[in-house]
Amino acid sequence: MTDLSTSTQAAHDGMLGAAALDAADPLAHFRNRFLGCDGPNGGPVVAYLDGNSLGRPLADTAERLAEFTAGPWGQRLIRAWDEQWMDEPVRLGDRLGEVVLGAARGQTIVADSTSVMIYKLVRAAFDAQAPTGRDEIVVDLENFPTDRFIVEGIAAERGATIRWIEPDPDTGVTPADVESVLGPRTAVVLLSHVAYRSGFIADAAAITDVVHSAGGLVVWDLCHSAGSVPVELDAWGADLAVGCTYKYLNGGPGSPALGYVRRDLQDRLLQPIWGWMGAADPFGMTDSYAPAAGIRRFITGTPPILAMQPLSAMVEVIAEAGMDAIRAKSVQLTEFAAVLSERFLVPLGVELASPSDPAERGSHITLNHPRFREVTAMLWERGVIPDFRPPRGLRVGLSPLSTSFAEVQAGIAAIRDALTELA
Amino acid sequence: MTDLSTSTQAAHDGMLGAAALDAADPLAHFRNRFLGCDGPNGGPVVAYLDGNSLGRPLADTAERLAEFTAGPWGQRLIRAWDEQWMDEPVRLGDRLGEVVLGAARGQTIVADSTSVMIYKLVRAAFDAQAPTGRDEIVVDLENFPTDRFIVEGIAAERGATIRWIEPDPDTGVTPADVESVLGPRTAVVLLSHVAYRSGFIADAAAITDVVHSAGGLVVWDLCHSAGSVPVELDAWGADLAVGCTYKYLNGGPGSPALGYVRRDLQDRLLQPIWGWMGAADPFGMTDSYAPAAGIRRFITGTPPILAMQPLSAMVEVIAEAGMDAIRAKSVQLTEFAAVLSERFLVPLGVELASPSDPAERGSHITLNHPRFREVTAMLWERGVIPDFRPPRGLRVGLSPLSTSFAEVQAGIAAIRDALTELA
Repeated sequence: MTDLSTSTQAAHDGMLGAAALDAADPLAHFRNRFLGCDGPNGGPVVAYLDGNSLGRPLADTAERLAEFTAGPWGQRLIRAWDEQWMDEPVRLGDRLGEVVLGAARGQTIVADSTSVMIYKLVRAAFDAQAPTGRDEIVVDLENFPTDRFIVEGIAAERGATIRWIEPDPDTGVTPADVESVLGPRTAVVLLSHVAYRSGFIADAAAITDVVHSAGGLVVWDLCHSAGSVPVELDAWGADLAVGCTYKYLNGGPGSPALGYVRRDLQDRLLQPIWGWMGAADPFGMTDSYAPAAGIRRFITGTPPILAMQPLSAMVEVIAEAGMDAIRAKSVQLTEFAAVLSERFLVPLGVELASPSDPAERGSHITLNHPRFREVTAMLWERGVIPDFRPPRGLRVGLSPLSTSFAEVQAGIAAIRDALTELA
Repeated sequence: MTDLSTSTQAAHDGMLGAAALDAADPLAHFRNRFLGCDGPNGGPVVAYLDGNSLGRPLADTAERLAEFTAGPWGQRLIRAWDEQWMDEPVRLGDRLGEVVLGAARGQTIVADSTSVMIYKLVRAAFDAQAPTGRDEIVVDLENFPTDRFIVEGIAAERGATIRWIEPDPDTGVTPADVESVLGPRTAVVLLSHVAYRSGFIADAAAITDVVHSAGGLVVWDLCHSAGSVPVELDAWGADLAVGCTYKYLNGGPGSPALGYVRRDLQDRLLQPIWGWMGAADPFGMTDSYAPAAGIRRFITGTPPILAMQPLSAMVEVIAEAGMDAIRAKSVQLTEFAAVLSERFLVPLGVELASPSDPAERGSHITLNHPRFREVTAMLWERGVIPDFRPPRGLRVGLSPLSTSFAEVQAGIAAIRDALTELA
């Protein structure tokens, strides 16, 4: 694999090399907290560029899970539900709210898969609006497939109409885009804070204002921002939000979702899946469902306690690093990736399909090239791991606490080598 | 704590003492596979009688989770989705089908919370029936709260009518009970195979026949049977089924549910939560949802892979022991508990609220006494752990592979002691 980091090249490019960037990185020491970041470890990963799809495990995950198994599960057994687990969806939600989401207590839970949480919250919002004649759901064509599919399903069952926004795929949804489809029939708007493909950061505060002016409710999908881009749900005036915890929150494959409902909306909204854990008295064995007060009514089934453990640890690591420092490193990482791409990949026919202004993009960039499906397969064999998004996008996802500048450089070099071999 | 196992007493009662029963138990050695079954271990559990609510962890759980974290998650990273995880909900479902459920391949998945799975499958069944004018959902008043609550929610949103069965609470739902509420408007029937309170085993094959004769679909809730009582979904002709995996399947707190849909129904049914993982092409980034063929269409969000690991191990332990042997021990355990209760607790005012014929009951018995709320709190302090179900039920749940006869005896003795102290 070609090394791009010689001092000659760094000087020529007018930028620091990866080694110097890593040396100057105030968060560099956090990499040691993650498994597989300190060397080959039996199955070498040269560069992990997909922390935006599945975050690396914290190095103490095994120890933590062992303690959980031996202690609360193995010894406290069913008693642990009374002692701590019943509160865990809200306790962990509150902590995420404080550290990651800009949300005051009592508005966030951890539960369900992300897709199920989207369903529940969009349904809750739609069903509250529908009686006033608002029957339109707004979503954009560049939103993640599950968001679009879930909305299609809701529209089919509730008789709603979908108003599609068609944003510029290389940027994202603007307040003007949203305003153009709003009206007296607008019920709910479901948008991503950071676009999964381009990485464009929506102006969530401005869009929320626009939606509110039209009498709509907005559900923010935070899957591609939570943990890498500062989120300020309370300050935005957001109505509801959903986020994924296995990406920048390192919760492990299939870890449960986060869900947020603004406090003053909670008692007005009713989600459709009336499970016992969202009931006012789950153990009361009453004859009929009465929703819990507050955020708990958005819970449905038994909380996935085991699956919350890695997330619970990661939120404390983020708290220690601080979201502002994480964002600063994220900007440096994507900028470094963009500059290297410009220098080494654009001459090979690659296009940057993400905003060039780092202030407008999250923690990943997407590169387009017709042969990136093949390139991704080649890279995976070589321990360089981005992901591929059809038809021709290669995403370079840079999880700030676990990714080094050296990994970025090795990754871009590997892409260049693969394209050169295929040429 | 008083010992009930003296040879004098055993002789007087005309039964073997616990020590002899444990010595003769062909499954006794399986207890060593579970954490905390070999002694105090720092926080002594004298008798765990609630494996029907939360199964004990397997002793190698920590090791298994460590391997999972270091290997597939930590090193294969996102590649593990392609290599194994995408298939895991169906692979593990198939294995459960083979070992525990009497279900051929391609009909079972592992996903979601139990409550969400109930919602999806009852909705799918109801929505398929509704266009033919069938608008009634049948459920019984002794069904578990989440089953009843979920059905209430579905009835509210779909305009369905609930037909309530009122079974004898100390026995359970009979084919005649079901037949009495069926008719041309019957859409779906949701019943528990084993009643959560009384432990009554429903005659699932006969009830399924009765429902089919009326043109209805039946959803079996296997929460309190799967892993302790033989289930024969295919032989029953069951339409759909849902089960919990953290009870007798020892999946850990909040582990994901199992869901079954009979093969010939799959393509006729559409579940309401159209997530990407149930789509024909999750990564196709198509503009519109098309459900996957077969059982995969009942998946919604990203499979909870980490949370499936303990379950995946437990199903192999069950395969090794065999469901018939497990059932035989379960019958012995509940019979032993019932006999000891009759001898030592009934004189103190306790009533057995479970079938007296072991062939009619699952792997738990419920005892009633007005002071059992207090008794349960006292027992928990003493390391004897049943659970309490309002208003006056104490459940003694006996997970066959991890419970000894000595535990049963110690548990009944502790109940007797507590009642005596309170008298």
